[in-house]
Amino acid sequence: MSVLFHHLRVHQVFGANTDVGKTLLTTALVRASSLTGKAVYYLKPVSTGPLQDADDEYITRFAGPKASSIQSRCLFRYSDPVSPHLAAQREHGADEAQLSIPSDGTLVKAIRSHIHECARATRERAHMYVETAGGVHSPTLSGSTQIDAYRPLFLPTILVGDHKLGGISATISSYESLLLRGYIVDAVMIFREEYYRNWEYLRSYFAERDINVAVVDPPPPKHADPALNLASTDEYYQNIVPEAQNGSVFDLLNHLDDRHANRIEELNTMPKRTLDTVWWPFVQHGLFKEEKDVNVIDSASGDEFSVFNGRRTQASVDSTKSLLEPQFDGSASWWTQALGHANPALTMAAARAAGRYGHVMFPQGSHLPALKLAERLVKSGPGKGWASRAYISDNGSSGMEIALKMALRAYAVREREHWTNEELAQGRPKNLGVLGLKGSYHGDTIGAMDACEDSGVYTCEWHDAKGYWFDPPTVGVRDGRMVVSLPPAIAALTESGEAEVNEGPIQVVYSVEERLDSDLAEVYRAFIQDMLVKITSQGDLKLAALVLEPIVMGAGGMIFVDPLFQRILVDSVRSSPCFSKTVRREGSWSGLPVIFDEVFAGLYRLGMERTSDVLGVTPDVAVNAKILTGGLVPLAVTLATQSVFDAFYGADKADALLHGHSYTAYPVGCEVANESLRIIDGMAKGGAWDEAKAAWRVAEGESPKVWSFWDPDFVGELSKSEAVGEVMAMGTVLALKIAGDSQGYQSHSAQKLLEGLRVAAEDDESSFGINYRTLGNVAYFMLSLNTPTETVRHIEDRIWRTLQPAEA
Amino acid sequence: MSVLFHHLRVHQVFGANTDVGKTLLTTALVRASSLTGKAVYYLKPVSTGPLQDADDEYITRFAGPKASSIQSRCLFRYSDPVSPHLAAQREHGADEAQLSIPSDGTLVKAIRSHIHECARATRERAHMYVETAGGVHSPTLSGSTQIDAYRPLFLPTILVGDHKLGGISATISSYESLLLRGYIVDAVMIFREEYYRNWEYLRSYFAERDINVAVVDPPPPKHADPALNLASTDEYYQNIVPEAQNGSVFDLLNHLDDRHANRIEELNTMPKRTLDTVWWPFVQHGLFKEEKDVNVIDSASGDEFSVFNGRRTQASVDSTKSLLEPQFDGSASWWTQALGHANPALTMAAARAAGRYGHVMFPQGSHLPALKLAERLVKSGPGKGWASRAYISDNGSSGMEIALKMALRAYAVREREHWTNEELAQGRPKNLGVLGLKGSYHGDTIGAMDACEDSGVYTCEWHDAKGYWFDPPTVGVRDGRMVVSLPPAIAALTESGEAEVNEGPIQVVYSVEERLDSDLAEVYRAFIQDMLVKITSQGDLKLAALVLEPIVMGAGGMIFVDPLFQRILVDSVRSSPCFSKTVRREGSWSGLPVIFDEVFAGLYRLGMERTSDVLGVTPDVAVNAKILTGGLVPLAVTLATQSVFDAFYGADKADALLHGHSYTAYPVGCEVANESLRIIDGMAKGGAWDEAKAAWRVAEGESPKVWSFWDPDFVGELSKSEAVGEVMAMGTVLALKIAGDSQGYQSHSAQKLLEGLRVAAEDDESSFGINYRTLGNVAYFMLSLNTPTETVRHIEDRIWRTLQPAEA
Repeated sequence: MSVLFHHLRVHQVFGANTDVGKTLLTTALVRASSLTGKAVYYLKPVSTGPLQDADDEYITRFAGPKASSIQSRCLFRYSDPVSPHLAAQREHGADEAQLSIPSDGTLVKAIRSHIHECARATRERAHMYVETAGGVHSPTLSGSTQIDAYRPLFLPTILVGDHKLGGISATISSYESLLLRGYIVDAVMIFREEYYRNWEYLRSYFAERDINVAVVDPPPPKHADPALNLASTDEYYQNIVPEAQNGSVFDLLNHLDDRHANRIEELNTMPKRTLDTVWWPFVQHGLFKEEKDVNVIDSASGDEFSVFNGRRTQASVDSTKSLLEPQFDGSASWWTQALGHANPALTMAAARAAGRYGHVMFPQGSHLPALKLAERLVKSGPGKGWASRAYISDNGSSGMEIALKMALRAYAVREREHWTNEELAQGRPKNLGVLGLKGSYHGDTIGAMDACEDSGVYTCEWHDAKGYWFDPPTVGVRDGRMVVSLPPAIAALTESGEAEVNEGPIQVVYSVEERLDSDLAEVYRAFIQDMLVKITSQGDLKLAALVLEPIVMGAGGMIFVDPLFQRILVDSVRSSPCFSKTVRREGSWSGLPVIFDEVFAGLYRLGMERTSDVLGVTPDVAVNAKILTGGLVPLAVTLATQSVFDAFYGADKADALLHGHSYTAYPVGCEVANESLRIIDGMAKGGAWDEAKAAWRVAEGESPKVWSFWDPDFVGELSKSEAVGEVMAMGTVLALKIAGDSQGYQSHSAQKLLEGLRVAAEDDESSFGINYRTLGNVAYFMLSLNTPTETVRHIEDRIWRTLQPAEA
Repeated sequence: MSVLFHHLRVHQVFGANTDVGKTLLTTALVRASSLTGKAVYYLKPVSTGPLQDADDEYITRFAGPKASSIQSRCLFRYSDPVSPHLAAQREHGADEAQLSIPSDGTLVKAIRSHIHECARATRERAHMYVETAGGVHSPTLSGSTQIDAYRPLFLPTILVGDHKLGGISATISSYESLLLRGYIVDAVMIFREEYYRNWEYLRSYFAERDINVAVVDPPPPKHADPALNLASTDEYYQNIVPEAQNGSVFDLLNHLDDRHANRIEELNTMPKRTLDTVWWPFVQHGLFKEEKDVNVIDSASGDEFSVFNGRRTQASVDSTKSLLEPQFDGSASWWTQALGHANPALTMAAARAAGRYGHVMFPQGSHLPALKLAERLVKSGPGKGWASRAYISDNGSSGMEIALKMALRAYAVREREHWTNEELAQGRPKNLGVLGLKGSYHGDTIGAMDACEDSGVYTCEWHDAKGYWFDPPTVGVRDGRMVVSLPPAIAALTESGEAEVNEGPIQVVYSVEERLDSDLAEVYRAFIQDMLVKITSQGDLKLAALVLEPIVMGAGGMIFVDPLFQRILVDSVRSSPCFSKTVRREGSWSGLPVIFDEVFAGLYRLGMERTSDVLGVTPDVAVNAKILTGGLVPLAVTLATQSVFDAFYGADKADALLHGHSYTAYPVGCEVANESLRIIDGMAKGGAWDEAKAAWRVAEGESPKVWSFWDPDFVGELSKSEAVGEVMAMGTVLALKIAGDSQGYQSHSAQKLLEGLRVAAEDDESSFGINYRTLGNVAYFMLSLNTPTETVRHIEDRIWRTLQPAEA
């Protein structure tokens, strides 16, 4: 939604309070801009009070000799001289207020549209001032406060400081509120009041923060006689904004011009500087070495990045178009976003924990944010009913390393009586491995990689895959029909021998409990039991843990595994005679410790808080991350049962889990996680997703086993599209596999096919580019948990149109 | 500095603006408290304006029938009715102002002392109200703003909202400023003004944030006649705070009592809840299972935690003592702190990045915080002169995994022509290992562990040490003398054959360049070259990188390695014929890629920005973390040369560095790092450490090679202490090895010996407990880069006294 133009400099004027001279100083700016020969646009989005006193009228009255170059405008006007939300309510009456009062979205769209219009109206350099009402946090028409409502526009700001007693505090607090929303504050303006001398204090305060303070002489006292008043006001403006074009207002004007130019210059240089200094994760720099390949993100809001693409389209660009364009964050910034970028509630959570604690040492320590998070996750979250402990770390990969250390130790301790002498001497067993599924991936640190098969894609010199991985059956929609695809070894065991079987529609496929008696369940059981015997009887490797990404394997290519297979795998491992060397204690894990890697799939990414509710089994260890902090800062939590914890418990320090990152349980991360979970819980309990769920319902009143924000009909139709082999949607995720491409991760087919999505649709002014990631021949799109429905429909429409064969 | 009492509830009253009824509403609270029969303390720390109008006088005038139970007090009084900083300046005159105006420290100490006094004065339940001046950000006497100055006291607050036009904004902004400092806001009070109805809006706004809003009828208009005025004011107070003890002020009183009780109850339950749910890093829970073992951190400020130790000392505690005690963060919260806990500049940095971006996807992307950080580190920081790229990740361990992946690949690519057929088929070479030093440790993820020797301490089931590790010579102060301790294999090569050699005082030992021609250098060179031949000619392992913690090996036990040895090791590896199978390209690494793990040692932890300036050689890859964010949030950066980057560059996606964490280069982390580096640069350039440096100077005017905040004489004397085997100090670090204990990490000797430091000195009111960590028989103490000198002296004194043998 943000806008930025070469030729049109736009500033939004906020006040540190009401009655601090906001309109007066804005008039001075407008007058100064017009005197320098610019076209000037003044916008008061919302005005309250009698028309004859309206700011947009006042502005032109004192604009001086070039007033004709000024266009003044008000978008919404109310006559009651109170806060806009109250004025609107009183004018519309309580009953119709809800319907008639413009929403924040409408307000912001109207402003944006007006700015675009002004930008198109001239090719010469021009200035625009958007004046707000009251203080920074004065309510808008809808009742939200101005800085939150206007934030999507992300206009650089001028703060008018408060010159009165107490005004230092009002000015600094207003500044801090602006910073909390990420606003660029280019300057402060304030009256030169000589008794309290706030300007003096504030000039030095803001100098430390690299912000100019323009000090302007205060206006003369009001005359009772209107004619005298007019004359003295006129003289005042001639003094502070003289036709000779000197003084503090003109200095400020130059400063604002410089800031504007510098901002554009900085954006212009960012692509090259990035290519020169940054080493991107998961990017082959040899393939993306042009400036146009760099996605410069100037700010973000909701699900949108505001990106600078000046260089990309420089040759063809219409010079009156915005240099910043909206771009939908279609990968939810690597699967982390849940509540929109720059969500003020999460910013405040981060700020209050930083303000109370900074970071504090965690071993042997406790602080409220960490304790509350641990309790929330263990007692009423993903760990409910099985976990007893939470171990907090920094990222999903670290969280999985911790999970592996836990499971391997739990296994080793129980099996100690079977160790060889050599193992006893070394203090630990050799050749431990894990059981898992082909296509799984648990993170980029080497220990986490070692729990995955070396497929030749995600690998490195020290990768040493330790384990055995089954090729699992998968599920997806093909040609409008839900199918289960069986790998050859399993298909061979079925009666038909076919690779694709129909187990019913999606709600039936995910009714795992009900499918346990099916023929396919028998096949899975036989296959797994047979394989377990084979694996455990051959080679040196001792299987010590079962490691699964439940429901979907993300990095491996958004592979939706047949949940029945995962359920039976867990059940089989737990009951298999292959793992029964040592008698287990009551209440402890059986077979092997089971790890659920829910880093991606957990916390409603797939529409459910935890995957165990779908599979019908709980793990012994589980890892959550990504959405955990609502997508603001890194954090991971590894949950474990009491029995796993006990494997490390004793009198010897060396037996403890000697794993700890410096910032373990840092208060900022924990507090942001608590706030995210609080907001998400509110959405879940408040029925925020009921509409989406209803679309996936089989019968009226029934709650679907699985559901998605994506429309089921769209998913069905998409799967019939010629270019698409298979589609799957669940929760916020939509994944589609390109037809007829078996190159996997190395493939660029998905990227090529969908390239058109990256830029906004030409024919639609409200359109936006879509930033998406591909995994070889798989493209996926991911939403937040609060993405507006109309946005989802728009994206579906864009995908649909992009995939239609070009007309001959 | 924070205080909390069972019997004495203390609240600090802040105003959203001046003239919002702060004193009037505080008077109402005081009156209400006294009517409920409590002893009431009113404190106005700083008062300006004529004495007859002073708040502390006013308070008792209208306190009602129980005014005798009220003690009213003002600590600093100035007659000019302007902001305190201005009043103080005007009263003292510009010249003597600097000397005469109380500092924030003095102010806070005076308040704290007064609160303690009041707490001691009664054992009955009592209330105390501390009223601030003006708005939240009004300047104090020193010129800093109130919420920053008072923050160390961390008193729970009441915010008096602004009922005037614009007051919604002023109230919300003030609230946000309070939150940015972590303050607990227990309630908002505001006048019931019926035209603008701010109270209505704010009540619903704060209800969403779980904060009570007490709405109180506004005072009657002022009479010109003082007698009438007195009567009407008196009647007003009788109405809003009736003797019948009902109405909104009494409701608020009950609410404040509840909050106070809940806070104590929460602190009381935290130890048990923590023991029940949390899995601590690096802690043997079997050894710390009592409530007293849990260090409950209520808040932190500067270098101090404010800890709740109620349970620990419950039996013996004097019930009038504070439940919260100051505790020096003696491990700098696992080596992360540099600028004090809850530093407002870092909070603001976190907030503005969160407000502008949230987190945004980094692959192929760019945003200012990340780009600026990369440029700062590559071009003018630790990477200056050698690095070309910055790879950003989440923690030191991840950063080291990335460093290892880089170095191993760089090696493998160059050696490709020598791969076996099997290796070619697998796509990578086998049996790569690293060269390092015994005692090194690079983090807890398994790949980072694999770069360290398996010493049996930091290990796990999948640890598979890949490499060879030299036993290095170390340096330290013994019996007042700097000595170099040689391992037997090296001692045997010297002329004397002795294990301890004298290479001169510390400045000489760290003059690495000058020592390159010494006899000992020759011995090191011969030893290393000989060993390299031996290692490379035996076994399957191919050495692919040299990995060092330069200067000091932290987790291994604060082992200060002889810098000459590390220098010669790097030189030898780079020039050794053992590693010259393939011809290197101009400008590329020679011998082996060299990794410097500066996670702990870098960024002034040891007094120098980077260790390469002391060693006189730069690495090919280096990792920074910990101090990087000033100690607020996790972040790591791996720096690399162009030649290492080029090893991943090409046309094939699979050749890229396929490593990336979800929150790679998250804006909050990068912006906090930029702000930390900006502040630290300012300190370095502004000579903030000149006094400490001077103490370590050999000659007047000379800059010492190495220096420390710890006093060199103290270090010398400490090393002569009977209980101490060896001491070393550098930068912020002081390490001491307990004499006659060879148990290493498993030992508890250091912990036992220094246990007395954990609680404050009995005989000193300004004393504090010291939270320190030990590494077996090694204890260490770590400062921030801005720890006040008097604090350092106090800690030295405490350590000194604790280590003196108990008198018979």
